[in-house]
Amino acid sequence: MNRGNKRNALSQHHMEELTDCFTAIGKNKHISVVVLRGSGPAFCAGHDLKEMQNESPQFYQNLFDTCIKMMETIQSIPQPVIAEVHGIATAAGCQLVATCDLAVAADDSKFATPGVKIGLFCSTPMVALSRAVGRKKALEMLLTGEALSAEEAVQAGLINKAVPFEQLQHETNVLAQKISEASAYTIGVGKQAFYQQIEMPQNHAYAYTKQVMSMNASSNDANEGMCAFLEKRKPEWKGC
Amino acid sequence: MNRGNKRNALSQHHMEELTDCFTAIGKNKHISVVVLRGSGPAFCAGHDLKEMQNESPQFYQNLFDTCIKMMETIQSIPQPVIAEVHGIATAAGCQLVATCDLAVAADDSKFATPGVKIGLFCSTPMVALSRAVGRKKALEMLLTGEALSAEEAVQAGLINKAVPFEQLQHETNVLAQKISEASAYTIGVGKQAFYQQIEMPQNHAYAYTKQVMSMNASSNDANEGMCAFLEKRKPEWKGC
Amino acid sequence: MNRGNKRNALSQHHMEELTDCFTAIGKNKHISVVVLRGSGPAFCAGHDLKEMQNESPQFYQNLFDTCIKMMETIQSIPQPVIAEVHGIATAAGCQLVATCDLAVAADDSKFATPGVKIGLFCSTPMVALSRAVGRKKALEMLLTGEALSAEEAVQAGLINKAVPFEQLQHETNVLAQKISEASAYTIGVGKQAFYQQIEMPQNHAYAYTKQVMSMNASSNDANEGMCAFLEKRKPEWKGC
Repeated sequence: MNRGNKRNALSQHHMEELTDCFTAIGKNKHISVVVLRGSGPAFCAGHDLKEMQNESPQFYQNLFDTCIKMMETIQSIPQPVIAEVHGIATAAGCQLVATCDLAVAADDSKFATPGVKIGLFCSTPMVALSRAVGRKKALEMLLTGEALSAEEAVQAGLINKAVPFEQLQHETNVLAQKISEASAYTIGVGKQAFYQQIEMPQNHAYAYTKQVMSMNASSNDANEGMCAFLEKRKPEWKGC
Repeated sequence: MNRGNKRNALSQHHMEELTDCFTAIGKNKHISVVVLRGSGPAFCAGHDLKEMQNESPQFYQNLFDTCIKMMETIQSIPQPVIAEVHGIATAAGCQLVATCDLAVAADDSKFATPGVKIGLFCSTPMVALSRAVGRKKALEMLLTGEALSAEEAVQAGLINKAVPFEQLQHETNVLAQKISEASAYTIGVGKQAFYQQIEMPQNHAYAYTKQVMSMNASSNDANEGMCAFLEKRKPEWKGC
Repeated sequence: MNRGNKRNALSQHHMEELTDCFTAIGKNKHISVVVLRGSGPAFCAGHDLKEMQNESPQFYQNLFDTCIKMMETIQSIPQPVIAEVHGIATAAGCQLVATCDLAVAADDSKFATPGVKIGLFCSTPMVALSRAVGRKKALEMLLTGEALSAEEAVQAGLINKAVPFEQLQHETNVLAQKISEASAYTIGVGKQAFYQQIEMPQNHAYAYTKQVMSMNASSNDANEGMCAFLEKRKPEWKGC
């Protein structure tokens, strides 16, 4: 996100840019993992308030539609998306962290859903937040608007890891590198199945993932991976 | 709860009193937040066993209906309800803590679902408990009947905060005060949407909260809040 | 599990043995709790890769059907099943830990879903894993294949307790002993209701558990338990 002077506020236009970018990445077989970071002093401060005053309900619906589409695109593409967070991640910026598959943050970063302070409850951010962290913690953030520290965000399950700012980019790259060593085909199959099965009753989830895993097991990359493992050599992925 | 000599046992009559009280609060626009505490040595010891021996299945169903109605009322009213816990919170008393939107506890308080020890599994308490904490922890509490310390309850996500007993009332009031500074209208919209969306598939939750947030964004309090923020002044809420 | 030289790999045949064993236990009223442990250096290393190379999709579906049936049997029998974990619990072995009602582990044990490393995403293990731990942690394990330490597994909610290896059997037995002191009838009613209600919307879960708890309250063991408690004596269970 390159709107550093606006703390990467999610204007209608910027969200459309991001959605287009994620959609293009989703179709590109040469990309195996994505890191989402923000330029300037903060990861993302949420919606652009200057764009939001005194508008019609229809305007707001369009704005939130654009936002939801961006969030859904991140989870729908085959490549894992890692949020690399520094500074603040607030409102829709916090939702963005909750939505990404993984998140690494600088240990002095802050996470909040502060809508209550401006009379506008973070109702769409709460969808992602309350699926990432427990109910009591989600309600505390939503009802008070107070920020979590990075360490608290790790405890709550909102992010994977908090590291000193100087190591943030390195640690994120280590994580991305690890993922990129796997078969992109296998990662994509698994990520997409994750979000499908998590919403199903357990018996449906098993019936569905059984099909997914049987197809995966019959693929070139699984056969290569099993052979390489048994032969104690490095696998060579074909991407199918 | 003012049945301190009975450790605030939830007799049929006391649960009806509490439900009536929460229902009246829910209709009162001058109340923005609720603190639920117990008089005497304990927060709440659950149902009144003396009321429960050798009764018919129909009796028990009526009793549990009354209890469930109380729990559902707490989550349905627009005002956040904070449990202020000291001593013990056991069985339906632990369910009460799991049900409240937020919970602060004295650091020497205990939380348990000990029904297995008297041959009566905490089956209705487990509904609230297993939606607040993870499966392994919930099953441990339910299958052994052993108590969590306040610190363990924080780790598990059952409560928000554990503080020394001497600071309990103060810390709870600080939390309540913080919530009462927000627009009661906005808080009510958000709390009620929280419990609706948490049970939906993610795409339905987004379709629903998009409507809620668009209405909220068009309200007087959101416009006032956004203006006040951009003008760097304190907002004045109108409650609509 | 007694295939120590294979790190208790879950061959088709071994899974059928385990399912038969759990099914028989489920029908035996003299057994009140089950401990699942592995002989040799590891708890369980997952499927037997040597059995899985270059097979048809139909073969894999049969294999996963057998595996899913074993997992579902563990949760469906009335007795609580405690995983006693040492060494490693990987892939379907990690799924086994996530599936058991409770888990105690040696503090040097490791937990992983490393399928991505061999091109075969742990798609069926993720069903159990993502219902035991939060989304970010589950995705981290699934997308990187990296192992959690026992302490991290406690934090994540995957296991109940990590103890030094020398105390592992003792601590597991203490937990099993505690459960066996309760009425096996009551424990069975409660365990089975747990997995039913956890998949329901909250209001359905209450309607269902109200019935379960009313029946339980009318049972001999609940009446005996309540009497014994009020008379301050030890209860004598009849198992009904």
